[in-house]
Amino acid sequence: MSKYWSDRVHRLTPYLPGEQPKLPGLVKLNTNENPYSPSPKVLEALRGELGAGLRLYPDPNSERLKTTIAELFGLAGDQVFVGNGSDEVLAHAFQALLKHDRPLLFPDITYSFYPVYCGLYDIDYRTVALDDDMAIRVEDYRPPNGGIVLANPNAPTGRLLDLAAIERLLANNLDAAVVIDEAYVDFGGESAAPLVRRYPNLLVIQTLSKSRSLAGLRVGYALGQAHLIEALERIKGSFNSYPLDRLAAAGAVAALLDRDYFEHTRQQVMATREWLREALQQRGFRVIPSAANFLFARHPDHDAAELARFLRERHIIVRHFRLPRIDQFLRITVGQDEECRALVRALDQL
Amino acid sequence: MSKYWSDRVHRLTPYLPGEQPKLPGLVKLNTNENPYSPSPKVLEALRGELGAGLRLYPDPNSERLKTTIAELFGLAGDQVFVGNGSDEVLAHAFQALLKHDRPLLFPDITYSFYPVYCGLYDIDYRTVALDDDMAIRVEDYRPPNGGIVLANPNAPTGRLLDLAAIERLLANNLDAAVVIDEAYVDFGGESAAPLVRRYPNLLVIQTLSKSRSLAGLRVGYALGQAHLIEALERIKGSFNSYPLDRLAAAGAVAALLDRDYFEHTRQQVMATREWLREALQQRGFRVIPSAANFLFARHPDHDAAELARFLRERHIIVRHFRLPRIDQFLRITVGQDEECRALVRALDQL
Repeated sequence: MSKYWSDRVHRLTPYLPGEQPKLPGLVKLNTNENPYSPSPKVLEALRGELGAGLRLYPDPNSERLKTTIAELFGLAGDQVFVGNGSDEVLAHAFQALLKHDRPLLFPDITYSFYPVYCGLYDIDYRTVALDDDMAIRVEDYRPPNGGIVLANPNAPTGRLLDLAAIERLLANNLDAAVVIDEAYVDFGGESAAPLVRRYPNLLVIQTLSKSRSLAGLRVGYALGQAHLIEALERIKGSFNSYPLDRLAAAGAVAALLDRDYFEHTRQQVMATREWLREALQQRGFRVIPSAANFLFARHPDHDAAELARFLRERHIIVRHFRLPRIDQFLRITVGQDEECRALVRALDQL
Repeated sequence: MSKYWSDRVHRLTPYLPGEQPKLPGLVKLNTNENPYSPSPKVLEALRGELGAGLRLYPDPNSERLKTTIAELFGLAGDQVFVGNGSDEVLAHAFQALLKHDRPLLFPDITYSFYPVYCGLYDIDYRTVALDDDMAIRVEDYRPPNGGIVLANPNAPTGRLLDLAAIERLLANNLDAAVVIDEAYVDFGGESAAPLVRRYPNLLVIQTLSKSRSLAGLRVGYALGQAHLIEALERIKGSFNSYPLDRLAAAGAVAALLDRDYFEHTRQQVMATREWLREALQQRGFRVIPSAANFLFARHPDHDAAELARFLRERHIIVRHFRLPRIDQFLRITVGQDEECRALVRALDQL
């Protein structure tokens, strides 16, 4: 507390990211990182940027990266926005598109940064309960509202909405911006990006942190019609002219262009997820169907916090949220095969 | 314009960064970048980060970088904040510390991002006129106010306030946060960082974009007492958990530790600046005394916009602001010796 703080600072409750412990030999299944290295072509592109050019500002518009993304999705350059991780892109979207007189809607169980953004920008919001199977019912999201934000697949549940459901949501809420946060969509979902051309209210947000193995590089992007992208650009241009450094932009381009590596590693993550799901179910866990690179699971006989502690003592860390409805679940990132086997071996010691 | 825009977006006037043209052979003296490459040790540190580790999130608290900065300035770790360029750090400072019922004060001629931040965060502000010599008079900044922000040396003038003047400003405004933006201080100024321990209202902001030759890497930081830093951390933690990617953090540490390279290149920039100042004065320019890596100059017989155009035709770009009081000035970044000689040769063709 300090008399120098603005009113807003006094009222904030910041987001708590998953921990990043620096212990060797740790099986780190707590922050949904990709278990595989970035593409060798990314590392090559980064090496190519290491030189005197770093003394110069980056392109403030990240044109090359925007063009790469636009071509990947069959969109125009002015239908793409890029930022310093999808968290920054989301923050700008909340400020630019989701703050209105009517309340913003999002699920009661979802990415816990959403209410934090609402605190930062003083956005009125209502949460909409997931059903008893932890699924989003799009019919529960109805006008009047000031916007909707959904993670698809949802986090931390991993549950997916199909594209038909997303389209119903968009059609039913044409007066409000609908933000679909697709951080995990490449692990089994279908992106809403092809709907951008038909729905003026749709903003799709993706990240390179998960399926492109670049959490350490901080690149996210948004896809939408030009009028929505312009709103984000106006915020960005009033906040920070150069959110993407030269290395991040170059690495991101290389990652998006290496389709083979992307395809190979995401298939591998999905295969390991299915193996781990079965292994957990065989050991009595109830596992929510997941289209993400993590599983959300509970055990009828073991308290989740105690389970997390038990695993941590064995140098395996998973994420446990002390939140209503989900405090008996663990969110387990899909690691490499050997990491998942280590998890299962530890559970067998229970 | 779009019905999906928040009210704030409609009212924004974004900052216009200097252009980043990609023409070969250009003499680029328009965005105050350092003419010298980053330290070889920075490139070595960056190479060391290129690997599988990029799949992992960075340390959200950038502890290693904060510790390095704290040791450099003889401060504690909780007296340091880091962000994605000093523009992001400034943005957070405006939102966290400079938004109050009473108006924020800053000079009428200064970094043109300041009024843009005020637009983004709806901050009431008043500008205080520089004197006729383009100098800041600290006695003109008096309570009641909701905060003060000064660039020192000021931009685009390059004029410096000495530490005694900064201290009078701090002592006269103990009820308001005073932000000193020291982007250019290493080119001839004295940092206010040693005053942090004595003034609870002082926040010093620096960047690695100028004297550390890392505009392309986007790293800035703030120094202040822990209660001011906490305000910035609360905003940051509500906006983006990981603003500094792994490469930026590693490169920044190496840059700050290579004192010899820093000392050598900044001395070189200052020597070239003095040479260029004399050369311009010999050709009839009036040059504002500069403690920065740029000169702010006007010629009594030549319109500044026309001069800028004349130089551009010769592949030399400088910055011209179409703003009251300064529209007859050019802001000329100090380049390498050969670049400055090219500029002078071009002027001799006038």
